Amino acid sequence: MSNLKKIEGGVTTPQGFTAGATYTAIKKRENKKPDVAVLYSDLPCSCAACFTTNKFCAAPVILDREILKKGKARAVVINSGNANAATGKQGIEDARTVEREAEKLLGLGEDEVFVCSTGVIGQRLPVDKVLQGIREIIPGKLAKENGSEAAYAIMTTDTVRKECAYELELSTGTVKIGAMAKGSGMIHPNMATMLVYVTTDAKADPADLQKMLSAAVDKSFNMCTVDGDTSTNDSIFLLANGASGVEIKTEEDKKAMADLVLAICTDMARRVASDGEGATHLIEVEAYGLPTEHDARLVAKSIAGSMLFKAAVFGRDANWGRIMAAAGYSGADVDPTRADCIIKSAAGEVQVMKDGFGADFSEELAKKVLTEHDITVIVRFYQGDGEAKAWGCDLTYDYVKINGDYRT
Amino acid sequence: MSNLKKIEGGVTTPQGFTAGATYTAIKKRENKKPDVAVLYSDLPCSCAACFTTNKFCAAPVILDREILKKGKARAVVINSGNANAATGKQGIEDARTVEREAEKLLGLGEDEVFVCSTGVIGQRLPVDKVLQGIREIIPGKLAKENGSEAAYAIMTTDTVRKECAYELELSTGTVKIGAMAKGSGMIHPNMATMLVYVTTDAKADPADLQKMLSAAVDKSFNMCTVDGDTSTNDSIFLLANGASGVEIKTEEDKKAMADLVLAICTDMARRVASDGEGATHLIEVEAYGLPTEHDARLVAKSIAGSMLFKAAVFGRDANWGRIMAAAGYSGADVDPTRADCIIKSAAGEVQVMKDGFGADFSEELAKKVLTEHDITVIVRFYQGDGEAKAWGCDLTYDYVKINGDYRT
Repeated sequence: MSNLKKIEGGVTTPQGFTAGATYTAIKKRENKKPDVAVLYSDLPCSCAACFTTNKFCAAPVILDREILKKGKARAVVINSGNANAATGKQGIEDARTVEREAEKLLGLGEDEVFVCSTGVIGQRLPVDKVLQGIREIIPGKLAKENGSEAAYAIMTTDTVRKECAYELELSTGTVKIGAMAKGSGMIHPNMATMLVYVTTDAKADPADLQKMLSAAVDKSFNMCTVDGDTSTNDSIFLLANGASGVEIKTEEDKKAMADLVLAICTDMARRVASDGEGATHLIEVEAYGLPTEHDARLVAKSIAGSMLFKAAVFGRDANWGRIMAAAGYSGADVDPTRADCIIKSAAGEVQVMKDGFGADFSEELAKKVLTEHDITVIVRFYQGDGEAKAWGCDLTYDYVKINGDYRT
Repeated sequence: MSNLKKIEGGVTTPQGFTAGATYTAIKKRENKKPDVAVLYSDLPCSCAACFTTNKFCAAPVILDREILKKGKARAVVINSGNANAATGKQGIEDARTVEREAEKLLGLGEDEVFVCSTGVIGQRLPVDKVLQGIREIIPGKLAKENGSEAAYAIMTTDTVRKECAYELELSTGTVKIGAMAKGSGMIHPNMATMLVYVTTDAKADPADLQKMLSAAVDKSFNMCTVDGDTSTNDSIFLLANGASGVEIKTEEDKKAMADLVLAICTDMARRVASDGEGATHLIEVEAYGLPTEHDARLVAKSIAGSMLFKAAVFGRDANWGRIMAAAGYSGADVDPTRADCIIKSAAGEVQVMKDGFGADFSEELAKKVLTEHDITVIVRFYQGDGEAKAWGCDLTYDYVKINGDYRT
């Protein structure tokens, strides 16, 4: 991936994409943080998407699955503050009303606008507010420079905007890719665990895009956990409008493009884990030497999701027993008798376990290592070539505080 | 189960069982809480047991599995403060040393003493202290009245002793059953999730006992979660010494005895969940109307284990969206469109969801309901006869505090 370059920007960085956002008081907020966003492409897009596996999926997910079948969408309307989930037929009608109005305002045909919602479950979507919002945004507020404002609008308990962009040189030219995401709580691998929008000005076939996206999601968002709760709403979209004129056709370009999609998804998944509700640490887990990749994924996810280990990281306690216990109950085929474990960060590294047994290590250095925000846990087995990475965050008082009083 | 009567007592209440405990400073404690316990039967016992499924199981678990094969054990030595887990061959040797010494002191043959440990993972068992402990206990401190002291000795982060006893009239006489348990953190269904000792003076075949115990564990301890972390050590033993002279032979008596074992296991599982680390609420989840019992178990466990719902209960927030989301990602075959949900406690009950949609309910009453210590969540589907119960606790600041600084 030597041609891959990280650049400033976000979801509107690729050519032909604009966005806009506004505040409609879906949730009363003193700071009037915007709560409705529109993402728009000047040109028709090839679309791919992955959706939550939760059976109580939200109305927008049900609608978007239908829209995706037509594969010609050009815009997305997103609101925060209300999930439009567990809202029955009314919820689907409400989502449809928003979709139709956006299509009318944008002069598009039927089923060209995806609708997404995030926020409280079980309350009817305040449709009038969302409609008022998109009328304010379209067309006046749609602009290239508003990508960041849209990333702000989709935040709920998120503390930072999540956006990034990359540029890639292919055989026939340069393409850009950008993304924004929202996700902080109710985050757990089972795609999808948040709202994510990836845009690119490459020109690609929808089937190819879907393949790239599904593969990337599997190694990125599906390996990211905050609390083990799989959301009802969450969705990731990849929109390719072809504005760069660069076609993704050769196998080589497809491979490079797939790497690019994986890179941006991994980047965003790390940001979501890092901004997990109440988090003070990003925990990256690398598992090596398992019999299969599947085993490695189980181990990495299990460690990243262990409540006990998450609490230990918060307490800066190198409690490696909890790491290995989590590997042990992961369901993977692990041989504990020859395992090694290392904890590292920018402050250094400590080997806490060697050959299945506790290693002598400096508690002082371990504490120092765990003082950094980004922590990496490496577990190594000697059973095969399976490896995987997962991302999580620590468990803090603030997680409890945020979620003890979220709805009321 | 009309003949079943709850009585005062614990693990030494059935005839022929004695216990003792002492403090050996495995962990320095100002209050000198005992940390080594011995449970002993005057008569040979039929034995049954279930063990953790964690692949990093502790040395005592490896040893006890061997001892169980001989099926004639009469005593158990338990220490708290050190788990003797991830301690390699040394750990097994250490457990064996404790076993042999106990057998010598008690005048028993080989493989007649189970050994259990609970506490920090990855540090060598202080064998000398444990040996010193059992020498202090055997025989001088072994007494019927010391059951409660033994229940105290096995506690780690537990805040209360967990013991209970029942009496049952069978066709040929009355039998007693008693239990003690330790469990507070690293608790999650996958048997076993703690240390549990069930004693009875009934006379039964080991195979029958194992059948009863496995079935009871499946509906009790395996449906109990505190933090999703399956321990490396945990084990449950059922010891039947026949001291009452009452034989469990007829199918009717076997059925009654199985119900008794289930009753005492359920009682203890509730206590473990209720005393979950940092817990301020016991959460009981009842799931009805699922296609199969397996689906119902998945749903009940998923709700009881949801970090988000646990935090909501702590915050006394009737956030039923999180309940249904947890049912939705449980992996069960659930139909969200016709589901109902009720939250109740001694203070009353509120129906928060009806026919898959949020019900109008009084937030004030809901808050009142959630103020009680014991909360019951009832979810009802309309798909079949599958039903199950699970037990969990809320997620509190104290869970984070306890586990942020457990080891150091």
